[in-house]
Amino acid sequence: MRGYDDDKQELLARLRRAEGQVRGIARMIDEDVYCIDVLTQVSAATKALESVALALLEDHLMHCVAAATAEGGQVAQDKLREANAAIARLVRS
Amino acid sequence: MRGYDDDKQELLARLRRAEGQVRGIARMIDEDVYCIDVLTQVSAATKALESVALALLEDHLMHCVAAATAEGGQVAQDKLREANAAIARLVRS
Amino acid sequence: MRGYDDDKQELLARLRRAEGQVRGIARMIDEDVYCIDVLTQVSAATKALESVALALLEDHLMHCVAAATAEGGQVAQDKLREANAAIARLVRS
Amino acid sequence: MRGYDDDKQELLARLRRAEGQVRGIARMIDEDVYCIDVLTQVSAATKALESVALALLEDHLMHCVAAATAEGGQVAQDKLREANAAIARLVRS
Repeated sequence: MRGYDDDKQELLARLRRAEGQVRGIARMIDEDVYCIDVLTQVSAATKALESVALALLEDHLMHCVAAATAEGGQVAQDKLREANAAIARLVRS
Repeated sequence: MRGYDDDKQELLARLRRAEGQVRGIARMIDEDVYCIDVLTQVSAATKALESVALALLEDHLMHCVAAATAEGGQVAQDKLREANAAIARLVRS
Repeated sequence: MRGYDDDKQELLARLRRAEGQVRGIARMIDEDVYCIDVLTQVSAATKALESVALALLEDHLMHCVAAATAEGGQVAQDKLREANAAIARLVRS
Repeated sequence: MRGYDDDKQELLARLRRAEGQVRGIARMIDEDVYCIDVLTQVSAATKALESVALALLEDHLMHCVAAATAEGGQVAQDKLREANAAIARLVRS
């Protein structure tokens, strides 16, 4: 069981759509679609993945991190540090 | 023919890899992989798409926009404006 | 007292440097420095502010959110929701 | 004379506001304002700098790069490469 357990079907549906978007971008390039129109689709796929990341992070904080801090101690500190590193990676990517 | 014509095979290969990454993320969620490890993969896929966007934009500036500005006039202005809007979307996404 | 209390002097020092960077950009423009060199400075200042944001967020999670989730209940839920919204704003900005 | 010559006063005004925002963030921290409210201000200042960067880049493409590509040759190639590198830095920051 994971933090995203309740949202699993929703996350999988979003990822299937993102996969379809990426495949659609390849098709556009294969068919010589105008650069700017391809770029618009790349932005859309990037935003879709960003939303998946934010949903995963939210679930992680609401469940895994909240459970660890409720217990306290070293485990809580480690979970918080790990979450902060993941947030920094996301903000900088 | 498009600005990305010379890079077409390279772009298609990158998109196939990105598509595989997105499918891999879905598999991880399906198998209840730890949230933070899934997030790392989402960041990798996002970066892959960002690189595709930058390559497309570079090709567009080097070919379509350069050709238009070499001619000058209203077409050049329009192409530059369109490119600027695409850059702004990319920076803000 | 706030989550960032222990880092207050460090944060203030960073913000003074960022303020100096922004003033430096204005001076560059005033002195007609080459566009690309000005842009490099704008990126540096943006990264400095991003680091301040990540430090503030880390302090907030380590103290305010951790304290709330240790207590549990509605307050914990509210703090987590608020933190998630702040993270989303940061990732999307 | 630079690409941003026509927008100089506008850019300087925006930078003065951004400088004021950064100083305001320091004041908030000094007065122990709630973390999340400080973060909102940091996001606003970051967005202000991002807008300055996009305006500078637009001016650069509309003037310096357009002039170089109208001439063509190695100078045009160099300007385009330099602009692409600046765009990549901006997108990744």
